[in-house]
Amino acid sequence: MADDHLSTTFAALADPTRRAILARLVSGECSVTELAEPFEMSMPAVSKHLRVLERAGLIARGREAQWRPCRIEPGPLQEVAAWAERYRHIWEARLDRLDDYLQELKAKERKKEKRHGRQQRGK
Amino acid sequence: MADDHLSTTFAALADPTRRAILARLVSGECSVTELAEPFEMSMPAVSKHLRVLERAGLIARGREAQWRPCRIEPGPLQEVAAWAERYRHIWEARLDRLDDYLQELKAKERKKEKRHGRQQRGK
Repeated sequence: MADDHLSTTFAALADPTRRAILARLVSGECSVTELAEPFEMSMPAVSKHLRVLERAGLIARGREAQWRPCRIEPGPLQEVAAWAERYRHIWEARLDRLDDYLQELKAKERKKEKRHGRQQRGK
Repeated sequence: MADDHLSTTFAALADPTRRAILARLVSGECSVTELAEPFEMSMPAVSKHLRVLERAGLIARGREAQWRPCRIEPGPLQEVAAWAERYRHIWEARLDRLDDYLQELKAKERKKEKRHGRQQRGK
């Protein structure tokens, strides 16, 4: 089910370490040892995170017995982007309303300054 | 922490009912009763989902005691889109490679057809 697939992806992304692992894999394939280094994490802890990412299809692992390099798989990330994009018109509308409000404030400010200027000259 | 905020958002989105509630709120504010209807869900179950969405800042609720309408809050969705967009170059590169491969296949196919055509004419 597409829905469950997206739920699995979102659940996998709901962890800062797993998101950091993905960010690390952008620069290329990595062994588990290399991935564990910056996080000061035990290998079993890293392996557990990798299993969650792999189950969600966010990473894939090589088949070499000794060195099973991890690589990022962009498919689910593209799905997340597409899902969020559906709401773009809402945040853009919100920004438009904010912009209208700012323009209104500025117009009021200019009117006030003009009136103030006339009063100053009238003195 | 920005990271934890994003984790809370992703965790809230890791459920098809909660995503359906957000999709429903795109068309406007809703009462809990209105939200509960299409899901054939008990009010307490819907309320629980709404609390998760509210905690993640994905929805906000009115203050009217009787009718506390829910509305969608686009901020966290915009953050999710921005986060996923950082990986766009990866899926685009993947698509480019696929496209290169397809072009290569097509070129081979054309070559084969040409050779076959010459053989046919040579007979």
